[in-house]
Amino acid sequence: MPRIPFEMAVEQLEKILLSRNMDKENARKIACEMARSSLEGTYSHGINRFSRLIDNIDRGIVLADASPQKINGFGAIENYDGQQGPGITNASFCMDRAMVLAREHGIGLVALGNTNHWMRAATYALQACAGGMAAICFSNTMPNMPTWGAKDARLGNNPLTLGFPRKGGDIIVDMAMSQFSYGALEVANLKGVEMSAPAGFDEKGNLTQDPSRVIASQRILPAGYWKGAALSFVLDVFAACLALGNTTAAIGRLNGDEHGLSQVFIAIDYRRIAPTEMTQAILDDAIDNVLASQSDGSGARITYPGERRIRVMEENTARGIPVDDVVWERILAL
Amino acid sequence: MPRIPFEMAVEQLEKILLSRNMDKENARKIACEMARSSLEGTYSHGINRFSRLIDNIDRGIVLADASPQKINGFGAIENYDGQQGPGITNASFCMDRAMVLAREHGIGLVALGNTNHWMRAATYALQACAGGMAAICFSNTMPNMPTWGAKDARLGNNPLTLGFPRKGGDIIVDMAMSQFSYGALEVANLKGVEMSAPAGFDEKGNLTQDPSRVIASQRILPAGYWKGAALSFVLDVFAACLALGNTTAAIGRLNGDEHGLSQVFIAIDYRRIAPTEMTQAILDDAIDNVLASQSDGSGARITYPGERRIRVMEENTARGIPVDDVVWERILAL
Repeated sequence: MPRIPFEMAVEQLEKILLSRNMDKENARKIACEMARSSLEGTYSHGINRFSRLIDNIDRGIVLADASPQKINGFGAIENYDGQQGPGITNASFCMDRAMVLAREHGIGLVALGNTNHWMRAATYALQACAGGMAAICFSNTMPNMPTWGAKDARLGNNPLTLGFPRKGGDIIVDMAMSQFSYGALEVANLKGVEMSAPAGFDEKGNLTQDPSRVIASQRILPAGYWKGAALSFVLDVFAACLALGNTTAAIGRLNGDEHGLSQVFIAIDYRRIAPTEMTQAILDDAIDNVLASQSDGSGARITYPGERRIRVMEENTARGIPVDDVVWERILAL
Repeated sequence: MPRIPFEMAVEQLEKILLSRNMDKENARKIACEMARSSLEGTYSHGINRFSRLIDNIDRGIVLADASPQKINGFGAIENYDGQQGPGITNASFCMDRAMVLAREHGIGLVALGNTNHWMRAATYALQACAGGMAAICFSNTMPNMPTWGAKDARLGNNPLTLGFPRKGGDIIVDMAMSQFSYGALEVANLKGVEMSAPAGFDEKGNLTQDPSRVIASQRILPAGYWKGAALSFVLDVFAACLALGNTTAAIGRLNGDEHGLSQVFIAIDYRRIAPTEMTQAILDDAIDNVLASQSDGSGARITYPGERRIRVMEENTARGIPVDDVVWERILAL
């Protein structure tokens, strides 16, 4: 697999976005964030997904130059209509706005409706961390996961991200509500390997680790079974109600590729009540403690949430971002 | 199993709390909430746990009359030292305070350190819902769950609850980060039945549904494997940093029964940006959609989060709260 230097990837993506009449600032932002997701190891929502974004722009599902319009606001909470704009610039705008509110009130919440896929969830928690704040963000998705006890997909695998700033590596969780994404199942299926844990149900309704059977049944497993299903539902209705936007149910009634999503961005300026030198000591101690765990002998790497990102970023910065030949050639042809 | 009327249960618990020199208001509050948890079907954190609370008071782990003292505050965020007071009154105070902040700023966040077990997590989300607000709350616990890839318990199974008010039944999620609690494993073990999903590892490191093997290994499974482990860690450090309190690691270094916990209470006065008639329509539609799911034939009941609570409350209000003979006799002897 060839490795592409980060700056070269950004320039290539930016050039294509500019060719779709996107303004310079938005094109730069989206190109940077998608290249950065790949640089930091979230390949599924970085360069690999760029062609689909361009396809969505070409079809008018994503409006290249739209930006969020405020609906309502009161104190530290606001909601916006994303006007079908690009998911990354819309979400980044709303996290910025949440941080402005947090600087004034200690905490800020911005809800965003009628937006598009924000790509990597962690991007927005990292954005808050870069500004010295903690964050909680979540999005809904199109229906892609059955609820517990059901066969048909009526829930989303709604990603949730939390971040807390730390010198030496922010604490970052970025998780969807399904045990595995369809992207991960497809990668394993092409390689002909099983998943490392039950991934969904086969067509007879039995749990299976065989990705081909889950792809066939379209019955992906909620993480934690009924727990992931319940959390998916509540994040969905929080986002839709706060944004006055679509639930996963309503997204499922729209035509065309996934769009019209609802999201929530919470920024917490914790420094106002908890000095950074104290939080740094608390975080370092928690990390030391978990990394001192005894291995169970399975070979699974014991990490703290966010550790892998830094390791991959360092490697890919030094060696370039690994990009599949076919993916890169398709991008060059856009 | 005998059934005890709600009011009789409250009076009995209250009488015992008063005998420990707790003030009248706190005794009433704790008695009501513990009886209500059982009334609404969370038996593990209601009447069944009352004797352990009294034991903790008698040993000086829970200080019956202590109340939270403010550490810092800025705008819509505050933190408190719980002074080792009762978990229920401390948590309820903090959720009330978060709601006061939310009325002023649209959202309020209160972090609480040095507190005790809050019993049923959902209690505080329901408290917000009763005041017309949405809520997100979480707590850490003593170490009781290994991280992913590890044998020794260094994470907590940190409960998380979210609530959104709805006429006809609030949306409520209340979930710990382990797939099953030790309480649930012990109940199944006494009955001699298997768990409905993998519950943890046996002593050879294989996943098992046999509760006795998990109790023997003390290796309970995070919900969603690595996902529940990561979420547990991040909720722990959020709570400890915001409260300037203990992490699960630090709780593990204390002597005596679980105490010195850290918690976070977020209240959102969504009505300021999202009219209740619109959120009600969004919620009703989302519920109708999920309840219309096709059954997978497993017999698992398809529900929305919060539905079971209402069903059980109605039954137990009419017929009395089912309480184990031994549990009730032990309470009568306190």
